[in-house]
Amino acid sequence: MADKIFRVNMTDLTASVEEVPAAWAAHGGRGLTSTIVAAEVLPTCHPLGPNNKIVFAPGLLSGTIAANSGRLSIGAKSPLTGTIKESNAGGTASALLARAGCKALIIEGQPKEDKWYSLALTPDGVMINEETELIGKGNFAVVEALATRLEGKPGIITIGQAGEMRMSAANVSIKDPDGGLRSSGRGGLGAVLGSKKVKFITIDPKDGKVVIAKPDAFKEANRVFAKALVDHPVSQALGQYGTNVLVNIINESGGLPTRNFTQGQFEGHDSISGETMHDTIEQRGGRVKHNCHPGCVIQCSQVFNDAKGKKMTSGFEYESIWAMGADCCVDDLDKIAEADRLMDDIGVDTIETSVAMGVAMQAGVLSFGDGAGVCRILKEEVAKGTGLGRIIGNGAGSVGRAYGVTRVPVVKNQAIPAYDPRAIKGIGITYATSTQGADHTMGYTIATNILNVGGKVDPLTKEGQVELSRNLQIATAAIDSTGMCLFIAFAALDDEKCLPALIDLINARYDLSLTADDVVNLGKYILKTERAFNTAAGFTAMDDRLPEFFYNEKLPPHNVVFDFTGEEIDTFWDF
Amino acid sequence: MADKIFRVNMTDLTASVEEVPAAWAAHGGRGLTSTIVAAEVLPTCHPLGPNNKIVFAPGLLSGTIAANSGRLSIGAKSPLTGTIKESNAGGTASALLARAGCKALIIEGQPKEDKWYSLALTPDGVMINEETELIGKGNFAVVEALATRLEGKPGIITIGQAGEMRMSAANVSIKDPDGGLRSSGRGGLGAVLGSKKVKFITIDPKDGKVVIAKPDAFKEANRVFAKALVDHPVSQALGQYGTNVLVNIINESGGLPTRNFTQGQFEGHDSISGETMHDTIEQRGGRVKHNCHPGCVIQCSQVFNDAKGKKMTSGFEYESIWAMGADCCVDDLDKIAEADRLMDDIGVDTIETSVAMGVAMQAGVLSFGDGAGVCRILKEEVAKGTGLGRIIGNGAGSVGRAYGVTRVPVVKNQAIPAYDPRAIKGIGITYATSTQGADHTMGYTIATNILNVGGKVDPLTKEGQVELSRNLQIATAAIDSTGMCLFIAFAALDDEKCLPALIDLINARYDLSLTADDVVNLGKYILKTERAFNTAAGFTAMDDRLPEFFYNEKLPPHNVVFDFTGEEIDTFWDF
Repeated sequence: MADKIFRVNMTDLTASVEEVPAAWAAHGGRGLTSTIVAAEVLPTCHPLGPNNKIVFAPGLLSGTIAANSGRLSIGAKSPLTGTIKESNAGGTASALLARAGCKALIIEGQPKEDKWYSLALTPDGVMINEETELIGKGNFAVVEALATRLEGKPGIITIGQAGEMRMSAANVSIKDPDGGLRSSGRGGLGAVLGSKKVKFITIDPKDGKVVIAKPDAFKEANRVFAKALVDHPVSQALGQYGTNVLVNIINESGGLPTRNFTQGQFEGHDSISGETMHDTIEQRGGRVKHNCHPGCVIQCSQVFNDAKGKKMTSGFEYESIWAMGADCCVDDLDKIAEADRLMDDIGVDTIETSVAMGVAMQAGVLSFGDGAGVCRILKEEVAKGTGLGRIIGNGAGSVGRAYGVTRVPVVKNQAIPAYDPRAIKGIGITYATSTQGADHTMGYTIATNILNVGGKVDPLTKEGQVELSRNLQIATAAIDSTGMCLFIAFAALDDEKCLPALIDLINARYDLSLTADDVVNLGKYILKTERAFNTAAGFTAMDDRLPEFFYNEKLPPHNVVFDFTGEEIDTFWDF
Repeated sequence: MADKIFRVNMTDLTASVEEVPAAWAAHGGRGLTSTIVAAEVLPTCHPLGPNNKIVFAPGLLSGTIAANSGRLSIGAKSPLTGTIKESNAGGTASALLARAGCKALIIEGQPKEDKWYSLALTPDGVMINEETELIGKGNFAVVEALATRLEGKPGIITIGQAGEMRMSAANVSIKDPDGGLRSSGRGGLGAVLGSKKVKFITIDPKDGKVVIAKPDAFKEANRVFAKALVDHPVSQALGQYGTNVLVNIINESGGLPTRNFTQGQFEGHDSISGETMHDTIEQRGGRVKHNCHPGCVIQCSQVFNDAKGKKMTSGFEYESIWAMGADCCVDDLDKIAEADRLMDDIGVDTIETSVAMGVAMQAGVLSFGDGAGVCRILKEEVAKGTGLGRIIGNGAGSVGRAYGVTRVPVVKNQAIPAYDPRAIKGIGITYATSTQGADHTMGYTIATNILNVGGKVDPLTKEGQVELSRNLQIATAAIDSTGMCLFIAFAALDDEKCLPALIDLINARYDLSLTADDVVNLGKYILKTERAFNTAAGFTAMDDRLPEFFYNEKLPPHNVVFDFTGEEIDTFWDF
């Protein structure tokens, strides 16, 4: 089936299926969402108004048997950052959209009446249905209700109460193969979907299949590619301990942001580490390995049960555990898991919301370490949209402004993730320069700063960090276009067969002859397209800076500050 | 007594009296606060951190007998807008500071301990005293307690609970001659003073006097100047009906922003008009005329009593009455007066806070017209710093972000005042281009657009508006440096003797020979100095824009939008 653009106009409640414009044909995933947003969204528009659009695009390899190809990119102008935004996640939707012949789904406009809707996407197009039953419900209730309401195993994309209330920390949730949730967490894309009055989207490809131009070449390339992935030691560690393998590693480095970014090590790190999590899961009969989308060979997800053996959460990530753990000083995995489940259900980004809680603790709203207080606020305030709930649900910057806090770890108003840029300087360059606000996944220098993947760049010195971040951001933008999980990057950086195999996959899928240079050029094009959007929205180099306290407050144990000048940071864009 | 710079460092709790640097000698009021902030404050600093400074400067003529010369300028980097900020108000402090030989008071740093302080300024310097009794108290309680605690009639500068809580709508209050309050309302300067942990400042000049270089020339110039003021019909209307004379006038023009900026006329305008206020005051035994500072010959302030004849509020301004009245649809002067008194007591800007209430009404937090609800929120939420109270107390932009509202009337995050820029286009240029966020007092085109002062520029067409705003902004910056109330501008625009007399006053005070060109150049210097600060803080032309809805939503009854292109707006800076 030929790929098409599926377009839904929520102002007049119409839907259409369109040919793919030539300029979009070579793109997928992030490359496509950013191209479409840049082409069709006025950069100065209000992110929650009728002139914003939200775009869903499977990657170039999504829907195929290629290992780890199931990431779905979602793009829009972000209500959190005001920048262009792409956030991708696993789940089944990406493959199903690709199989339905949908190259991108664009939702535009805004209903005039105060009614809610759902969208049902099939190869024939999109049906727009009024929805009442599930309005006000959390994500788990949506997934459960739809399992009963619908036949088969449709893909489900949904928002919780936070998205309905247009909170800037609202994520978009995507059903995984087992009815769990994966989150396009960053940048408040759930609020954009909520502003369109779309509660959920179901995807049924019927008998649609992705056509591979050269099936044999594709299979062979996938064999080489998958082998490179499973052979890499970081892949293996991720499978064993999940992403949470990082707690002890980053703590050891002195770059684990703790107590709202005032320390680089957390005294309670052992209680929340990947090793402890692994043992706890085994004791309670959960699953140490779990794939967030079909075809994943790394399986960094897991199923974490409570003490009674009941499933508490899946996809229990390092970022969530760090943020609620070290940053909020909650040294209790069960409490963190409870908070994680609540955040997934309400539909808020676990990074943004947990860092917001840390700032709230700094402000005295609750005490550091008060995991029960966090859960109460999530249930009683955020989910219900009280004043405090709105403050938290709009992210860390919102809490800082509400309470007059000066130590607010955000860049472009987006919360800084689990690596302190004072002790791991490369990631500071990524936070500062990313077109998307602070986001480790945009150029994961931790690989080279800490994990010795792709070489070694000392995390504590300035030398080489800008170049490292630049190369990784360019490569990441390209990878984010393929539908591939970012964790293929470890193998791609160390195993010389990996990247060629990935390119072979794309060439075999589409009958192309792309080279490694084409991939680099794609990455550069994406970054420059995104930056041009931000410039037109009013962003300048002055926005590519870390908050003042990183320059003025020394981080123990290394007692270091972030010491890049503005001019040094700005050389990032010399390409 | 020679003028000096009084400097207080709150980090090490020291104070000093310094000679005036040559570059600052010719400046006063806004010219001086902006010069000092630009010279000493890092533009990228956090407004509530130790690197911001707050500067208090009497005008060039403050402390003399010159009519209407009692405005005090307060400057800092604003926590509301992120720009440089000057906000001036009446009261007795400006004259008393000048008489104490204080050209400017600079407060810098931030205490390391969580303690509160007061400052006592005399000609000898500043004493820093720990304060406990009045912490958590409203402004009226502070003024009342100090009347008992201190001898004489010291000047008092104070913050309410909002300033203590570092809310971005927090104002700085200045005692008037009768123990009432005047407010440096805009831009959250109260939060900056609160961040320095200074609850109040008392000023006792002892027997200090301002020295006039040429007393006879000064007296003669003042006679001409004062006559020009009292003779002007707008001055007379202001004396009769207060600034609230404008309700019916602006309503008639179709530019009275109503129901959160969705209409240009308010059906309840008669109930809240200056005429109704005047009659109500007379019936209840209040005062129709009242001066906010000694020497004012216009006397636009008044004392408004409740139905039982008890004083409710003074300085009951058009802006406050419009914002709580038309914009929130509260058609009850008594309810508005109650809210006004509460806002003065808590210490929040009545424009910012009332517009914030209008946005909250739009969001459904309370209903349009619910004056009792507004008072409840002020008392129970804002004064106590609850979640909702923080959202409101941080201004209209804060409410918009918290509730995902797209119709949020702010520029550079500061609430737009009482003139809709769609129906009165000149003021839209001022809102957009002002270095301080939306602020009518920065270039009051209403004079010429509506009141036919200084000529006539049709409010509904684009022609001539940029030039009008430019000329007025330049003139205003200069006037704001003199200590003069902006209301001298009506006479200055229409009476050819007025401006020369003002220049004569300055020349006689300091033995100078300034010309009208010097005054214009001063205004230009101030605007450019302020803009350079903002540019260094990261602002660009893209910030000189009105919110999207002004371009897309037609305002009844004229059914007009704001239709200046960005390029047209940017020509403002061609000077």
